[in-house]
Amino acid sequence: MDKIELIGFVAGILVAISLLPQVIKSWKTRSTKDVALSWSIINLSGQILWIVYGVYISSTSLVVMSSIALVMNIFMVTLKLRFG
Amino acid sequence: MDKIELIGFVAGILVAISLLPQVIKSWKTRSTKDVALSWSIINLSGQILWIVYGVYISSTSLVVMSSIALVMNIFMVTLKLRFG
Repeated sequence: MDKIELIGFVAGILVAISLLPQVIKSWKTRSTKDVALSWSIINLSGQILWIVYGVYISSTSLVVMSSIALVMNIFMVTLKLRFG
Repeated sequence: MDKIELIGFVAGILVAISLLPQVIKSWKTRSTKDVALSWSIINLSGQILWIVYGVYISSTSLVVMSSIALVMNIFMVTLKLRFG
């Protein structure tokens, strides 16, 4: 992997895992009052389309990273609906 | 633009603008207690790398969408630091 592809790869990893601390925080505090539900839903819709696009263009990185983000968004939507 | 590229384009737009309702909510409510600062900072770091990567591979879409997400993340970090 050359330097440029490595930058892209690290970028994707960072963006994909960025939601993890938010999910952990919401899970621990049981409070999601300040989190916008529409944010998670719009992001989730985008991730589903990224996966479809990734499968079509045969981009493993895109499919893997969008899947990670999708799972975390599903957690966030569930936590938001549960804790309000 | 063919159908597949359109799917990728819409996916990018959705993910890029998804933070907007969160920024608006945090701005209006002046409350970001339930928002994890580390989420915004990790995501922001990833968007900066996406822009670098996008410039290198000459992907206008990637640069534009990451820039939109970057600006919204800067807003989120600022709001979080301001309102705690």
